[in-house]
Amino acid sequence: MRAAALVLLLSASAAAQTPIDPEVYRDAAHRIIDAALADSAAYDRTVYMGDTFGHRFSGSASLEAAIDWILAEMTADGLENVHGQPVLVPAWIRGAESVTLTAPREEPLAMLGLGGSVGTPTGGIEADVIVVGSFDELADRADEAAGRIVLYDVPFTSYGRTVPYRTRGAIEAARVGAVASLVRSVGPVSLSTPHTGTMHYEDGVPRIPHAAITVEASAMLRRMVERGEAPRVRIRMDARSEPDRMSRNVIGELRGRESPEEVVVLGGHIDSWDVGQGMHDDGGGCVVAWEAVRLLHDLGLRPRRTLRVVLWTNEENGLRGATTYRDSVGAATERHQLAIESDGGVFEPLGFGVSGAEGVYEALAPITDLLAPVLGSREGSTSGIKPGGGGADIGPLMQAGVPGAGHRTANDRYFWYHHTAADTADKLDANHIQRNVAAMAILAYVAAEMPERLPQGDYLGAR
Amino acid sequence: MRAAALVLLLSASAAAQTPIDPEVYRDAAHRIIDAALADSAAYDRTVYMGDTFGHRFSGSASLEAAIDWILAEMTADGLENVHGQPVLVPAWIRGAESVTLTAPREEPLAMLGLGGSVGTPTGGIEADVIVVGSFDELADRADEAAGRIVLYDVPFTSYGRTVPYRTRGAIEAARVGAVASLVRSVGPVSLSTPHTGTMHYEDGVPRIPHAAITVEASAMLRRMVERGEAPRVRIRMDARSEPDRMSRNVIGELRGRESPEEVVVLGGHIDSWDVGQGMHDDGGGCVVAWEAVRLLHDLGLRPRRTLRVVLWTNEENGLRGATTYRDSVGAATERHQLAIESDGGVFEPLGFGVSGAEGVYEALAPITDLLAPVLGSREGSTSGIKPGGGGADIGPLMQAGVPGAGHRTANDRYFWYHHTAADTADKLDANHIQRNVAAMAILAYVAAEMPERLPQGDYLGAR
Repeated sequence: MRAAALVLLLSASAAAQTPIDPEVYRDAAHRIIDAALADSAAYDRTVYMGDTFGHRFSGSASLEAAIDWILAEMTADGLENVHGQPVLVPAWIRGAESVTLTAPREEPLAMLGLGGSVGTPTGGIEADVIVVGSFDELADRADEAAGRIVLYDVPFTSYGRTVPYRTRGAIEAARVGAVASLVRSVGPVSLSTPHTGTMHYEDGVPRIPHAAITVEASAMLRRMVERGEAPRVRIRMDARSEPDRMSRNVIGELRGRESPEEVVVLGGHIDSWDVGQGMHDDGGGCVVAWEAVRLLHDLGLRPRRTLRVVLWTNEENGLRGATTYRDSVGAATERHQLAIESDGGVFEPLGFGVSGAEGVYEALAPITDLLAPVLGSREGSTSGIKPGGGGADIGPLMQAGVPGAGHRTANDRYFWYHHTAADTADKLDANHIQRNVAAMAILAYVAAEMPERLPQGDYLGAR
Repeated sequence: MRAAALVLLLSASAAAQTPIDPEVYRDAAHRIIDAALADSAAYDRTVYMGDTFGHRFSGSASLEAAIDWILAEMTADGLENVHGQPVLVPAWIRGAESVTLTAPREEPLAMLGLGGSVGTPTGGIEADVIVVGSFDELADRADEAAGRIVLYDVPFTSYGRTVPYRTRGAIEAARVGAVASLVRSVGPVSLSTPHTGTMHYEDGVPRIPHAAITVEASAMLRRMVERGEAPRVRIRMDARSEPDRMSRNVIGELRGRESPEEVVVLGGHIDSWDVGQGMHDDGGGCVVAWEAVRLLHDLGLRPRRTLRVVLWTNEENGLRGATTYRDSVGAATERHQLAIESDGGVFEPLGFGVSGAEGVYEALAPITDLLAPVLGSREGSTSGIKPGGGGADIGPLMQAGVPGAGHRTANDRYFWYHHTAADTADKLDANHIQRNVAAMAILAYVAAEMPERLPQGDYLGAR
């Protein structure tokens, strides 16, 4: 997941759409649940992918190897129209990198350069650190920043409120003359764990190196400044961008029984950051969508419309897969019944948040009843189908009017692991994944089988 | 804390000692609590020490610099007989080190060599990995180990049950012909966080390199083997032992008003591992003991007996400070009223566990009532004075018959940080530390002021 969860609010006015009748689908739902709970393939495939290929960063050989493997497996599964959709993606190379405290004493600091950053000159950049807690504070102290390294020491509150210091930190620091910038890793809990992620530059503003240090190191630098000390750091980064490389969206289908030209899209993003295994973000989400369709195929539950698994590439640092897919669809977004994305981790399933034109939520809400046997619960949160949700990769479809559904799980620890070396297979729970497959299969099946088309059109709210 | 918490069981028979009367000390306890809660010096000093000197590993310049600073501060505080007690300590040098997965694919694995380990030849040691879950499994599969690298993939249950794979893993692996050994880091939660710690060799058994990898990497290697793959790793370690170096136990006193030759010892260990800042293990414990005595000094609460702060050096990889102190005391252990150690973290205070001859617990138990205002609680645990407790550094005194008390805190996260780069000042809570100072000062004051001597003699139980 690259950016803040979409917050999409539906109109409060009455529904225009007939709610589905859950009884029609109850037998299928039972069969799906029984099969999913008896089958560990989704867990096994997720873990195998993580262990065998490692990270799946855009532009890497390991991403393409993982894609090759999925395409072969999907074909062996009997899915239809299995192919890779070519996508040009950025190639950012981390290279060797380090951040070293050089005063008041010398100590290497754990760090990760941020995706897209320029490197430093050979020998690095060494300067005094100015520690700020917000962009406002930086603006107030702009005259202190010239020639220094700005550290954004912003404690995690929510991803949405904290991540701008990662994405825009270099821009704002460069505007006031800083020579580089650092950000406290965007995560609520740290065991000396740096978090990477994407960052941006802006035309007309100098491009300065930008990296994340740990919560531990960031807090220490703040304390030093508060005690009147003058910490200095040296940043060395060989980071560079190379020409775009070819990657692919992974596509596989279960063709519709009656209206194959109408499509329910479901998937996640197959790329990850270049650390860890990208298991909760988002290998697990990809396999859950894939396995949901494989399971329907094996059960002989071929619905009225086509189920299309799309595992988008390059969500993390470009969203090129999502835009390529949306462009390839063209006007056929009108024939997209629903787009479902799983990109918030594959913890215990809570259901789906749906967004779209008036009536979409009301039509799908009764699916809660079918999902109930596999859902968990979280304090302060409703399990089942709830209004509001989406995903970065289905964003372009949703903006074209396609109803969207975001997969919800009990992901309180999601940002512990997010974009770190710790997003690994040991954080997965086989039972949770099996239940996620069941939930995904039920929603996709019902949306593809229901006689009515879901309404299209503008949703209320904003990304 | 180096080893499993001491489990010291008292005899169930009746007490021989008169319980103290808490009313006699209530006014002093109130003054102590009020002063401690109004004074952030203990937190400030702990954090300053961590930030300013970094780790405090035996044999390092940073340990000696921290000791110099404490001695100067203690003198400025007005403590008496402030001095460093010379101690020869081991000098183990970590050097450059790495573990790399080389098959079925290549990936660097986060790791920390274990203290005392030999290094590898230049170029490292590369071999297939045999993964075992216990010493018993290694014995059963002894014929598979020759020429291989043994990985002990033992999930954390308790420190006592898990740590033998760190301390004795190289010995048992070498016995069956392994060329090196690895251990899953000893900790319950990992964010790609390796844990170091001490390890041993045995005469007559080849000395092979021994290192910790992360929970994440260890679990992955196990999964690979379970899938029938044959993972290989390459270990490179420049680790070496150099001749012993001089360090010091830090000693400072508040001399007794009436019986200065009788002593209540209180302290922690000033050394740490060579990563992080050693804040919960055990910088915080040291400062809590020191500040408890400083606070009594400032309040003019000079008790009948001498309060002696001892910050033992080299607890982590030698216990040389503790044995040196005990040897220096000689027969005067008979004049040690009580030995108190804080070495389980400075989280919310829960009280003290006391051990000693019959009657010690009964004499001290009423102090619970005086501590109550500053203690927290933990489910399933009693707050206050409870039977059973001690510490590694006071172990030699206790074995000579001195009653011992181990400081208890709500340390559920202690082993998240223990011996890692994450044992840093951001994990400290100023209020918790202030309350720990109050609790430590109350126990030390009452033990030093009470008219009766606590009985000495064998305690029941074992280290």
